[in-house]
Amino acid sequence: MNHGVVPAVVVDGTRSILAPLARLLARLGVHANAVTVVGVIVTLAGAVVVAGGQPLAGGLVLLAGTLADALDGQLARASGGGTRFGAFLDSTLDRVADGALAGAAIWLGHSTAHATLVASSLALFLASSLVPYVRAKAETLGLRGDVGIAPREARVALYIIGVLIWAALADQRAFEVTVAVITLLTSYTLVERVRDVARALKNEGKR
Amino acid sequence: MNHGVVPAVVVDGTRSILAPLARLLARLGVHANAVTVVGVIVTLAGAVVVAGGQPLAGGLVLLAGTLADALDGQLARASGGGTRFGAFLDSTLDRVADGALAGAAIWLGHSTAHATLVASSLALFLASSLVPYVRAKAETLGLRGDVGIAPREARVALYIIGVLIWAALADQRAFEVTVAVITLLTSYTLVERVRDVARALKNEGKR
Repeated sequence: MNHGVVPAVVVDGTRSILAPLARLLARLGVHANAVTVVGVIVTLAGAVVVAGGQPLAGGLVLLAGTLADALDGQLARASGGGTRFGAFLDSTLDRVADGALAGAAIWLGHSTAHATLVASSLALFLASSLVPYVRAKAETLGLRGDVGIAPREARVALYIIGVLIWAALADQRAFEVTVAVITLLTSYTLVERVRDVARALKNEGKR
Repeated sequence: MNHGVVPAVVVDGTRSILAPLARLLARLGVHANAVTVVGVIVTLAGAVVVAGGQPLAGGLVLLAGTLADALDGQLARASGGGTRFGAFLDSTLDRVADGALAGAAIWLGHSTAHATLVASSLALFLASSLVPYVRAKAETLGLRGDVGIAPREARVALYIIGVLIWAALADQRAFEVTVAVITLLTSYTLVERVRDVARALKNEGKR
């Protein structure tokens, strides 16, 4: 799996930390889909807190939601494998969470009258909805479409880091710069994926 | 194909009007992908004009972009069938256009300090990105996922009607009400599609 700019040590470290929790939940009979739904609700709550201009609380709630989101896949595997509906639900709710994160930045820009934040987070909303769409479309064509430097975990990790730097410096501009960086990385990822699909289909004849 | 709330007479009428133009372009050797790209550029321009608070000009430009978008499929067929890359490009650029329409409403709400328009068009952005995502995901699972009362052509048609009513009445609230209606219809469509996929996968065993 492609983790983009997130170092492998962070991905593997997070997994090792969550592994005992996943096994515990599996033993208690908690269903992976329940963790998926709780994770997105927590993330939505975190997005609302960020949109309201409270970075410390918002960042911590988002971190909790993201860990729950990382947990559901492990729990599904620990419980003997996920269902196709579970995978569909997880992907769809990831898109809801992506939209909530970009939407929170738009709302923050609107309510604090920062037009540049509104503009860059509108671009982020579009790019972060297109990146997984292009992948799903590529999959319907029998391709993979998962290349790119900023897959979801990279985008979410950078977003939370930006929120926490904003909290630490008590300066919203730190978050605004982070959103602009994520927007650029996500747009570049989109270009990479479209180019990848175009290359794979280029020498094909008519359907 | 499912056209949702758009009457079949409108869909068929538009097709009959565009048919001679599609044949002409095919004879001139114009490629369907070129029309697709021009269509989205015109739609983006229309969205910028709407975002700037000019409903008459914006509505007419959006109408032109939408007709170009309806033309590319007909042109592809008139030219002997589209390619898989053409279909991929068309779907992906439709998502860019969807985002631009919702984004224009968000920007308009921001710049005219109408928080309810910002909020309802944020919801529209999310719902109108999720509806096609759920369909693409359903297709990767071998399902169709194209049910629902508000597919893309219904959403775009209602949006343009809302912009033109705003122009006719010189009252932005007409557009704001339309955006709220489209958001509700799109959200309901999302629920329909998720329910459809859930029902199809429900009785499946583990993967």
